[in-house]
Amino acid sequence: MLKRTNNAGELDKQIEKTVVISGWVHDVRVLGGINFILLRDRSGVVQVTVLKAKSPKNIVDIVSKLHQEDVISVKGKVVKSKIAKIGIEVIPDEIEVISKSEVPLPLDPREVTPANFDTRFNWRFLDLRKPKNILIFKIATNVEKFMREYFLKEGFIEIHTPKLMGSASESGAEVFEVEYFGRKAYLAQSPQFYKQMAMASGFDKVFEFGPAFRAEPSKTTRHQTEFTSIDVEMSWIESVEDVMEFEEDWLEYVLEKIKKENGKEIKENFGCEVIVPKKPFPRVTMREAHEITGRVPKELHDDTDLDPEGERLLGKHIMEKKKHEFVFITDFPLKVRPFYHMKPENNPNITKSFDLLWKGEEITTGAQREHRYEILKKQAKEKGMSESSIKFYLDFFKYGISPHGGLGFGLGRFVAKLLNFQNVRDAIFLPRDMDTITP
Amino acid sequence: MLKRTNNAGELDKQIEKTVVISGWVHDVRVLGGINFILLRDRSGVVQVTVLKAKSPKNIVDIVSKLHQEDVISVKGKVVKSKIAKIGIEVIPDEIEVISKSEVPLPLDPREVTPANFDTRFNWRFLDLRKPKNILIFKIATNVEKFMREYFLKEGFIEIHTPKLMGSASESGAEVFEVEYFGRKAYLAQSPQFYKQMAMASGFDKVFEFGPAFRAEPSKTTRHQTEFTSIDVEMSWIESVEDVMEFEEDWLEYVLEKIKKENGKEIKENFGCEVIVPKKPFPRVTMREAHEITGRVPKELHDDTDLDPEGERLLGKHIMEKKKHEFVFITDFPLKVRPFYHMKPENNPNITKSFDLLWKGEEITTGAQREHRYEILKKQAKEKGMSESSIKFYLDFFKYGISPHGGLGFGLGRFVAKLLNFQNVRDAIFLPRDMDTITP
Repeated sequence: MLKRTNNAGELDKQIEKTVVISGWVHDVRVLGGINFILLRDRSGVVQVTVLKAKSPKNIVDIVSKLHQEDVISVKGKVVKSKIAKIGIEVIPDEIEVISKSEVPLPLDPREVTPANFDTRFNWRFLDLRKPKNILIFKIATNVEKFMREYFLKEGFIEIHTPKLMGSASESGAEVFEVEYFGRKAYLAQSPQFYKQMAMASGFDKVFEFGPAFRAEPSKTTRHQTEFTSIDVEMSWIESVEDVMEFEEDWLEYVLEKIKKENGKEIKENFGCEVIVPKKPFPRVTMREAHEITGRVPKELHDDTDLDPEGERLLGKHIMEKKKHEFVFITDFPLKVRPFYHMKPENNPNITKSFDLLWKGEEITTGAQREHRYEILKKQAKEKGMSESSIKFYLDFFKYGISPHGGLGFGLGRFVAKLLNFQNVRDAIFLPRDMDTITP
Repeated sequence: MLKRTNNAGELDKQIEKTVVISGWVHDVRVLGGINFILLRDRSGVVQVTVLKAKSPKNIVDIVSKLHQEDVISVKGKVVKSKIAKIGIEVIPDEIEVISKSEVPLPLDPREVTPANFDTRFNWRFLDLRKPKNILIFKIATNVEKFMREYFLKEGFIEIHTPKLMGSASESGAEVFEVEYFGRKAYLAQSPQFYKQMAMASGFDKVFEFGPAFRAEPSKTTRHQTEFTSIDVEMSWIESVEDVMEFEEDWLEYVLEKIKKENGKEIKENFGCEVIVPKKPFPRVTMREAHEITGRVPKELHDDTDLDPEGERLLGKHIMEKKKHEFVFITDFPLKVRPFYHMKPENNPNITKSFDLLWKGEEITTGAQREHRYEILKKQAKEKGMSESSIKFYLDFFKYGISPHGGLGFGLGRFVAKLLNFQNVRDAIFLPRDMDTITP
């Protein structure tokens, strides 16, 4: 077997050298006396040129039988080329066929004719062969890397909390039930309770990257039944403002790094500029947001959230007035927030919580948590929570606990906004919704 | 509210300065004219000394009412001390009580009398307050950091594969069922199929950190129904040996870094030495392993795995003969391996797979995968798999795929071995087994 020595897209420093490259037949063209193979791997596409007159017969034979998406290894010399797009081609000494592709392909990774949405996700493994799609996950890898880098620099502890729970984490609705040795368990809708447990344990600052599960019986461009959630919780905050300032610093760090590392290819491939946000980010209260967007009657301003169109309008307004892609919405109505958000002393109808919008779409929910046992218990009751089902959680607050707050973040949604995708699915390896559970 | 300025365990450079520290009352002693508070946070414990005669009355009052595990903030001057253990104490100007603890405590974080196992895990949030337990998760954070650092340095892409699947990932047994909008879904036992999908998509090298779920109806010191799995898959390997060499390089890197960063505190707190393993790690075939351990009749050598006692004996043997903590067991019997492991041409009873033992316990399973569609289909059939339930997986092999292999790894088990724990639970934030689903 030929052992790969180089990546197909990184041969510009190998001129006149013999290399082994391995990958997929992106295209093959037999033109009388000359045959071209375009060989694709993760790093790029290179032309392999077979001159019939000058090549060993077995190579000509092999090439004549190649199909698109066959997997081959090519040993050959890298030479400068006047015809190949990238100015380089490989003249093969040896070609090994490793894996044959069936024909016809259900989906063509060259995207000559774009596949429809269902085909793309039914054949996601072929869809992901498109160089632009692999690039998304290279960028996502960097996004995670820089996010973690910042957490670790700031002394955060990484935790992995259980996804199997004895009771629903936030509310009875939208939770998946699991058969657990003859009883019921539930899939965690978020690591909320457990990242707060880490605060009760004195971990001080924690983060988690992990799946979160929501049994949402809806199919939208932004919701998934399973998604990768990034969760942060931090102690000794004075107010929710500390959490928001943390997020500003964090996103500034991440976007600065991404701009430097991937900014150019993001612009070239997805047509959008990575902008490092100025601090502080604009802030509006939910009341102000309703006034700006004008989509909700005044008497409901203290009761409701923005809908997606409201978010879009607010994002547009802030971009026009402040030239900023981000905006915090603060003072969320109690009615649309869970029982564990802290309320301010002077207004029982709102919470010390926020959403962060990026380019007109919510990407984060955050809050200061209620850490006072008696008040927390009361708030749970007011929200109709059964005390027994969350006793284990309420216990965290009985034996001394630090004031704390935190935020939650969807990795896919972040990447989708970064690359200006309309649909979050494009940023997810294998999306899940109520109709989609395979592949 | 007093805003924390410093960590309790990091005051040695603050002598004669005024600081604010926040944390838990680790202990409080009222001795006539002098009161001591031991204040604990994640970084350590410091003594706060209140001389009755010299202190404001309100401070003396507050201290007289303090209980163990109350949460307080202390503003005061750091001074050198002849009586305090660490040679430093804080003389308070102001003490703020932030959160009171109920008495009695179900579990004493000072561990004066060690709690039994069930109490510890029923009250895990109190158990984790023990400084030694927080240290475990600081070390685990570094373990993950260094593992990722190596993957990223080597050009791996980080993926997040779905945990909700339309069919069981490896076999029908030991899989959790989920109610999914009126039909059944299953929790992924591993990201096996999907990390191989990434190979079919040309991702080349991938890794994932995420939960894996096993409905194991047993309670042992090493198994969990949910655990954090570290998964690696890589293309263009020539043989399973490439995967093993990758793991050697990776673990050498991680353990070298951990030794440097945490070696001293691991020795002091857990009494064990971090040893950077020499390469190559010793290798024995499963047959040789059976001969060495002598626990299985010869006629079954090609059919069975080692049991835990066998693993222990082999680890001991290798330590005696080779002075090495690690040993690869290769050539695993087909009978104990899943259908997707590749078989060598010359022996239909074994597989191109391995386990890695560390200190006498399995920490990794790895293999070269069968990437040839027809052979894979045949092997699935031989193992009694229903082709329809894994059609989506078999499809990955129909349209050209690279030779590949990989490995899987339990993070908790790795940390447990690193720190010489008998029970993997000690290395897990909130363990899960058939009886334990709360907290």
